[in-house]
Amino acid sequence: MPKPERHVLVCINTRPPGNPKGSCGEKGSEALFEALKSLLRERGLKDRVIVNRTNCLKHCSRGITVAVQPDNVWYAGVTPGDLEEICASHIEGGTPVARLLMPDIPWE
Amino acid sequence: MPKPERHVLVCINTRPPGNPKGSCGEKGSEALFEALKSLLRERGLKDRVIVNRTNCLKHCSRGITVAVQPDNVWYAGVTPGDLEEICASHIEGGTPVARLLMPDIPWE
Repeated sequence: MPKPERHVLVCINTRPPGNPKGSCGEKGSEALFEALKSLLRERGLKDRVIVNRTNCLKHCSRGITVAVQPDNVWYAGVTPGDLEEICASHIEGGTPVARLLMPDIPWE
Repeated sequence: MPKPERHVLVCINTRPPGNPKGSCGEKGSEALFEALKSLLRERGLKDRVIVNRTNCLKHCSRGITVAVQPDNVWYAGVTPGDLEEICASHIEGGTPVARLLMPDIPWE
């Protein structure tokens, strides 16, 4: 692939069950990561977008947290059902998905 | 911290010794990640910059690979001795470190 146009980061940090912060891993972020990779392949975007797992993206209580760079757009509470819209609206269309934007709260 | 101004990604992918691709992990990227976090704290940047470990950033043979977002600047062959310059020139000064830029080669 050439230099990626976009760099998508998916938090896979996992805390033990019962931890008051919760974690993206507990909410299924590994599966979300794999689903996003598959979707990008299906939509012919795999050579334009790189997707990576990361350690904690510092919004445990709002996970699953996903950041889309170089837009510096951060999404909260992402589920597999949101991925089509993120791909179509944001990655293909350049318009971030407003309803998923991380609220303006302190990074944890 | 408020929303980070910059998002630094450090590849910690590790392949077994002898793998022909090599890997950032084998070249000490965990220690580099920790050194960068310490340096950002020392320089008073920890509330402006988030640093994350990632899985493979697709430049195994050129590692340690570091990406700085939202600039979409990718660095190759980063060593602990380069971190002061990356912080001073790029993160504080806004000027990427030209000598470390990833060459225009295909992503692996």
